[in-house]
Amino acid sequence: MSDSVRRVTRRERAAGLADGRPLLSGDLATVAWLTGLVIDVESGPSPFSAPPLVVVAPGGDVVAVASEDDAPTADAGVEVRSFPGFAVEDVDREAAATGAALELLGGARAIACDLASLPAPLVATLIRGGVELVDVAAALRAARAIKDPDELEGIKAAIALSDAGQAAARRGLEPGRSELELWGLVRGAMEREAGERVAVLADFVTGARTGDAGGPPGDRVLAEDDLLLADLVPRRGGWWGDSCATVAIGSVSDEVRHAHSAACEALERATELLRPGVIAGDIDATAREIVGAVDGGAYPHHTGHGLGRAWHEEPRIIPWSERRIEAGMVVALEPAVYGKGWGVRVERVVLVGEHGPEVLSGHDIAL
Amino acid sequence: MSDSVRRVTRRERAAGLADGRPLLSGDLATVAWLTGLVIDVESGPSPFSAPPLVVVAPGGDVVAVASEDDAPTADAGVEVRSFPGFAVEDVDREAAATGAALELLGGARAIACDLASLPAPLVATLIRGGVELVDVAAALRAARAIKDPDELEGIKAAIALSDAGQAAARRGLEPGRSELELWGLVRGAMEREAGERVAVLADFVTGARTGDAGGPPGDRVLAEDDLLLADLVPRRGGWWGDSCATVAIGSVSDEVRHAHSAACEALERATELLRPGVIAGDIDATAREIVGAVDGGAYPHHTGHGLGRAWHEEPRIIPWSERRIEAGMVVALEPAVYGKGWGVRVERVVLVGEHGPEVLSGHDIAL
Repeated sequence: MSDSVRRVTRRERAAGLADGRPLLSGDLATVAWLTGLVIDVESGPSPFSAPPLVVVAPGGDVVAVASEDDAPTADAGVEVRSFPGFAVEDVDREAAATGAALELLGGARAIACDLASLPAPLVATLIRGGVELVDVAAALRAARAIKDPDELEGIKAAIALSDAGQAAARRGLEPGRSELELWGLVRGAMEREAGERVAVLADFVTGARTGDAGGPPGDRVLAEDDLLLADLVPRRGGWWGDSCATVAIGSVSDEVRHAHSAACEALERATELLRPGVIAGDIDATAREIVGAVDGGAYPHHTGHGLGRAWHEEPRIIPWSERRIEAGMVVALEPAVYGKGWGVRVERVVLVGEHGPEVLSGHDIAL
Repeated sequence: MSDSVRRVTRRERAAGLADGRPLLSGDLATVAWLTGLVIDVESGPSPFSAPPLVVVAPGGDVVAVASEDDAPTADAGVEVRSFPGFAVEDVDREAAATGAALELLGGARAIACDLASLPAPLVATLIRGGVELVDVAAALRAARAIKDPDELEGIKAAIALSDAGQAAARRGLEPGRSELELWGLVRGAMEREAGERVAVLADFVTGARTGDAGGPPGDRVLAEDDLLLADLVPRRGGWWGDSCATVAIGSVSDEVRHAHSAACEALERATELLRPGVIAGDIDATAREIVGAVDGGAYPHHTGHGLGRAWHEEPRIIPWSERRIEAGMVVALEPAVYGKGWGVRVERVVLVGEHGPEVLSGHDIAL
């Protein structure tokens, strides 16, 4: 019951930021956030589809516009105006989506939207019709940062895939295996856990490439005393998980061990700071200060980021950000140290609870 | 040398269909076709990027607009106007892309474009500025159907991945393995062959699900006398391969054997017809007639399709199509028969040569 009560709240928040206007978005993460509708991404845009849209009425009712192939993924009770997906006939799916969206917008003279996400033919029609387009993209991104209970369950399930992948990486880390072979074991473990194919973004590098902060697996063969840096970002049910660990096959230098300790300490301290009211930029500064105490200790990327229906969203934990942390945010923290020919990064996902941080990740971050 | 001569031809053809206007497209396949620039797709749209664009000047010069992360994939000699990709700072990448495109368009009063592919903020600016947008999407799709020699090399390399995957499926087909386990072996074989991660679209089903014409691998465990239907569509260097085979673990019924023979015969006959001047709809009709001679023999999908920078493009081999086959087209043919609880499909990629068809696929299609 509390679940469905909160879901209404999420849609009502979206309607609220549209300030009495209909709200329109084609951002895949926003569509999924409001309707549950998720599309396949692994092979790029489908010639048999057109990107989905969501229309939120001023009262909070949501309707999706999507191909028949994508429609079944929508949450129970969500209306979907659909057009043909995989079909023999030539279908003008963009025109069908535009027509359905215009009908749902019902002649509104002003629309709140996420402009960059919208299909051009629809926007062209709206502008030529004199409709005012009010861009609320930033407000939508901010709204998505606060997670409802059902979203937390989705994110936890995705993190369970990250955990399974990290465990498989640690088990399979052996000299003589190529990065791609080990990657196959890791991805296989995540897919076995999910019972289906899993879209996954990953940094998966060994040896000197760990110093580059990331990259895809290649055909390099693992050697004694190598480091593996594995950052696993799998999607499950349309939610993204995330985690990073750096693992040594054999012995490591004192320099690397010291840097890893500093990264872990930065992670712990940043986690402790993830409380309602704290400023994102302050968390970033604290983490950077800790790794900065190591000779050459620094990382050229963010300290952390929200995740949910997108793999990187608000709140971004970056220098000088004045964003205030709020309860219900979910943040992946990933401080690191990169040296010459080596790098270490550790990452965990943390829920900002009313009364303190709660670590959602279950994987081992030991070196 | 002939390579670079032909490349100019491809761009000049694109410029030609714009009829003296600048040409603008954000279609990922068209951008790759004209510039070589390819983006990661496996984890969906990146919050650190904005979709790339291509601008073709009336003389045929091409310039890409893309993030710094994507820019290095562009062909040598192609100019890229770039904006920050993975960055710590908040960057308005859509605004950057719009600004760069507007500068390249240089105040043109009319632009030829692939409207549905363009970013909405750019289109909004153009329309408000009174610029005429002439949609040439269909002409672009038709132009992409004819492949240049360097494109054929790219497609052949992608087909080599399909071949490696099909061989691995055949080798690994054993009772007791789950679909996902076998899928892992197949994908692993393709990634080993490529030396990198490979984006891949696939139907990978066993048992009764072969009768559904496709679907993703799941946790079903393979049994004696199962059929595997494996349709593998991998991307390599931004080109797509494609192939399908249906393989039996043990014995098969006469009904299935008969249907498979008919599908193979339809494939052979359709291949023979793939010659300059033949009408696509006639090839489709011939293939359907052959499988129709089997009791209940039919398939609810196209008979074939072009492929290249997209995994499904012109020429589509579908009923009633009046499109004329031309030399340089590359077509995947995939006739099938689906019964109650079983299905068989065979697919090969064929180049339409000046003097006859040339099969590019090298995999085994035996049952």
